Amino acid sequence: MRIAFIGLGRMGLPMAVNLLKANHTLSVWNRTGARAADLQVQGARVATSPSDAAAGAEMLITMLADDSAVEQVAFGDGALARLPASAVHASMSTISVALSRRLAAAHSEVGQGYVAAPVFGRPEAAAAAKLWVVASGPTRHVERCRPAFEAMGQGVFVVGTQPEAANVVKLSGNFLLASTIEAIAEALTLVRKSGVEPGAFMGVMNALFRSPIVENYGKAMVEGRFEPAGFALKLGLKDMRLALAAADAAAVPMPLAGLLHDRFLTASARGLGEIDWAGVARVVAESAGLPD
Amino acid sequence: MRIAFIGLGRMGLPMAVNLLKANHTLSVWNRTGARAADLQVQGARVATSPSDAAAGAEMLITMLADDSAVEQVAFGDGALARLPASAVHASMSTISVALSRRLAAAHSEVGQGYVAAPVFGRPEAAAAAKLWVVASGPTRHVERCRPAFEAMGQGVFVVGTQPEAANVVKLSGNFLLASTIEAIAEALTLVRKSGVEPGAFMGVMNALFRSPIVENYGKAMVEGRFEPAGFALKLGLKDMRLALAAADAAAVPMPLAGLLHDRFLTASARGLGEIDWAGVARVVAESAGLPD
Amino acid sequence: MRIAFIGLGRMGLPMAVNLLKANHTLSVWNRTGARAADLQVQGARVATSPSDAAAGAEMLITMLADDSAVEQVAFGDGALARLPASAVHASMSTISVALSRRLAAAHSEVGQGYVAAPVFGRPEAAAAAKLWVVASGPTRHVERCRPAFEAMGQGVFVVGTQPEAANVVKLSGNFLLASTIEAIAEALTLVRKSGVEPGAFMGVMNALFRSPIVENYGKAMVEGRFEPAGFALKLGLKDMRLALAAADAAAVPMPLAGLLHDRFLTASARGLGEIDWAGVARVVAESAGLPD
Amino acid sequence: MRIAFIGLGRMGLPMAVNLLKANHTLSVWNRTGARAADLQVQGARVATSPSDAAAGAEMLITMLADDSAVEQVAFGDGALARLPASAVHASMSTISVALSRRLAAAHSEVGQGYVAAPVFGRPEAAAAAKLWVVASGPTRHVERCRPAFEAMGQGVFVVGTQPEAANVVKLSGNFLLASTIEAIAEALTLVRKSGVEPGAFMGVMNALFRSPIVENYGKAMVEGRFEPAGFALKLGLKDMRLALAAADAAAVPMPLAGLLHDRFLTASARGLGEIDWAGVARVVAESAGLPD
Repeated sequence: MRIAFIGLGRMGLPMAVNLLKANHTLSVWNRTGARAADLQVQGARVATSPSDAAAGAEMLITMLADDSAVEQVAFGDGALARLPASAVHASMSTISVALSRRLAAAHSEVGQGYVAAPVFGRPEAAAAAKLWVVASGPTRHVERCRPAFEAMGQGVFVVGTQPEAANVVKLSGNFLLASTIEAIAEALTLVRKSGVEPGAFMGVMNALFRSPIVENYGKAMVEGRFEPAGFALKLGLKDMRLALAAADAAAVPMPLAGLLHDRFLTASARGLGEIDWAGVARVVAESAGLPD
Repeated sequence: MRIAFIGLGRMGLPMAVNLLKANHTLSVWNRTGARAADLQVQGARVATSPSDAAAGAEMLITMLADDSAVEQVAFGDGALARLPASAVHASMSTISVALSRRLAAAHSEVGQGYVAAPVFGRPEAAAAAKLWVVASGPTRHVERCRPAFEAMGQGVFVVGTQPEAANVVKLSGNFLLASTIEAIAEALTLVRKSGVEPGAFMGVMNALFRSPIVENYGKAMVEGRFEPAGFALKLGLKDMRLALAAADAAAVPMPLAGLLHDRFLTASARGLGEIDWAGVARVVAESAGLPD
Repeated sequence: MRIAFIGLGRMGLPMAVNLLKANHTLSVWNRTGARAADLQVQGARVATSPSDAAAGAEMLITMLADDSAVEQVAFGDGALARLPASAVHASMSTISVALSRRLAAAHSEVGQGYVAAPVFGRPEAAAAAKLWVVASGPTRHVERCRPAFEAMGQGVFVVGTQPEAANVVKLSGNFLLASTIEAIAEALTLVRKSGVEPGAFMGVMNALFRSPIVENYGKAMVEGRFEPAGFALKLGLKDMRLALAAADAAAVPMPLAGLLHDRFLTASARGLGEIDWAGVARVVAESAGLPD
Repeated sequence: MRIAFIGLGRMGLPMAVNLLKANHTLSVWNRTGARAADLQVQGARVATSPSDAAAGAEMLITMLADDSAVEQVAFGDGALARLPASAVHASMSTISVALSRRLAAAHSEVGQGYVAAPVFGRPEAAAAAKLWVVASGPTRHVERCRPAFEAMGQGVFVVGTQPEAANVVKLSGNFLLASTIEAIAEALTLVRKSGVEPGAFMGVMNALFRSPIVENYGKAMVEGRFEPAGFALKLGLKDMRLALAAADAAAVPMPLAGLLHDRFLTASARGLGEIDWAGVARVVAESAGLPD
């Protein structure tokens, strides 16, 4: 497939590499050019703008930092306008439910396809083509994207035909991950201040939960190791905002999401935005009078 | 070993059966006599009172509903006073950190041993000898109890030598389980009201978490199946109280535990105390205007 | 002064009447025409559109339901474009901090003045010219508006020269009012379920607080009288959203605002959006298992 | 009346002085003797123990730090046993609902009277005989105490005949005061970080609320003046615990009380227990990244 790939950050770059490995033809663009150059030697065409990349593509993939970056590419730069009518846009970054709806409508108006396809997994998983892709949209559009998704991930979950379904799942999933972090952080603080060895506690929890998620976050917190960030706290804050916005729009009170938002905001206001999001454990510990 | 086993409820009865199977000698007592009779046919001696059971025992196991039941047996009825000086009391129910400390001191004063040894696992796990036993106390006392623990569980975690360590771990663990329930309940409510199929969402979460805990609670909530209770909501409420009491005593603010307490209390006040604790999902759904 | 008055709702209509009484010349507009007709007999000119009203005015007052209504009037309909360069726009409804900033910039660009001037007070206070006007903006613009403000209120508070200061004060004030409602509602529920007469409790609180706000909300809750709404619950929900948005933008975690948002959202999701915002007391009571 | 007055702390001492001024006969006792000596010169008899003070008294007043101090005096030292059968015990400190019930039962058993009569007001109000006394209990017992109450306060509120009613009112009232502190603290943090002058904001709030409570707490926070403590933060924490215990026992979820508890516990864990309880504003400010 001829694929335009926009956004070569810590996730986007390895994803694009895996598409090249699977013999797709790529035209790529990134806000800062250096990262695109890396891909050129692997056979990608480096476009001069998002719309230049989109011209002639069968599939457009966006993997950008936030809503405004996606809006800028799609509407501001005009990538949407240049994309051929038969093409499909797979929006793979974590964006708001509202923007996903708006993109779906805009594409539909001009006959293009739109699929929301955010992913679960960290940069290492992206490099190993082990992402989980969560997709939603009209079946024929999802199916056209499937080969590309399979080249980047270990599995594709189709969660609905309405375009924003995958965004809801992605935000709800990140909410579940953040909840796990908060719960472990509170429990570990209690355990520590009660004189129990944190590693011993996590040993029991790992036997009980048998989950790599619980194990990995617990380990990072027991060791106090939050750098380098696998997923930056400030991005976690952004996602809690998006989850709360989706919840508010659907009239769903989510007090736990509110609590998480406040934790991430506190951590961010205190200068911890760049560490791993498991690092909110520091704010939890401080609230109990513990040193970092 | 000659074991006095007090408390033959939904957990205690199968645990006692497994001790008999492992050829321990049991004298048993239960507040309501009928359940003790079941064990008589399997070779246990049915005692006339907790202190009658404790007389001559090498090990005393209590598996009772709450703090006041344990206090009544240990101090009120006088089981502690009748227990031989060389014996060890393994307190296996979920009791407060404060009571565990008090029991440890009382036993120590008269030369008896005390081990806190609460368990993780539901009645089915108890029947299958698949409990996880979390133990704490002086090493020699824990080791004396080990054969009995191994006859009832699939593993023993020793989490410290101070007697209440295991109680802290047990309460923190139940807090983690309850947090998982709340998080899934909020996420599922958002997912549902956003028009996404709840089962599809849990499919993604199961791939991500790979945890039987997440899977089982998610399944119960997707199916709205909260009866019969594996663990009654009112017991979950009791444990949130104990966790908050431990946290308060250790000066650890636990806002998530507070949120969980309020959910369980709301559910209980609305008549849901007897259903499974995953049934707080009903309160979450109602807060978003959904029917049960 | 020649004043264009846009928005003749429950607050706007009596405010406009007071301006007429103070001998200002009014051209008025309302989305539904009937309310404008009432003013015609009192001497106002009924404009055919917001921009028609704005043409030739020295001062433009907007008193509309929400951000989108104000945006529609200012930008969509073009009232801003038609307003003379020397005129001042006093934005008196409760709008977001972000929109107030945007309006200030847009007016400034074309040489017009902009003053944020939200008000505290219910329709009765508006009718009696007893509103409190909270104003912010460049001093000369605020002073030009002052005669109009004084015709509508019992006092004008100038809280800063940056245009959005008054919006922050208004939203923070509504947050304080909503907090008072929640606190009284929780206290009254405890008092009731403890068998104490709610009126007796409020008697003590009134002696202590000596505040008409505490007295009036307490009285409404003791009597369970939430209709007709002085301030509709759904508007309270809107304001909690705006307060949280302002807090998020300023990196201020406000857990109490989050709690209030969830209460109002729950009430709204359960069909209580049209009753007075003190009616969240019903949701509080229900959470304790009390009937309404 | 012959009154035994136990507890001469910052509140008790001026209250006892006012009883002497009103010509009551006092036998007093305090844990640390020095404060009792001050009263001796004003005509009080300094007792050698609480029970010595109680012997022969018509009325026993306890004004002690917490539940355990009251328990020690009533049961441990035996003041209750020495009190004449016809006497009435007025428990005026802020104690738990549970202890108040227990005291009522114990007194009733031996034919003595019991009245719960906690007070609102700070040491200055106690000195000026301007306390508000909230009383509950059998009417004849309350009426016997009334002359003493009137000598110490500016008003007596009788809130019920069941003995613990006044304790519920006192705890609910302190909850309302603490809620006011939290709400102002969050609002002021938003206001500050938005560049608005905090004093200007409080000016508007004072016009709106017209409450000395709002005015005084707001002033302390605007000035950052939390010492000397009018009411120590650690006592506020104690009262939030008692309020939550009463709420839990009555099956009333109080999320705002939970939030307040966590704030006070955080402040206490960070070493702020001795400053005025309005000083939780520091914790609120820190959570937004502001310096103290």
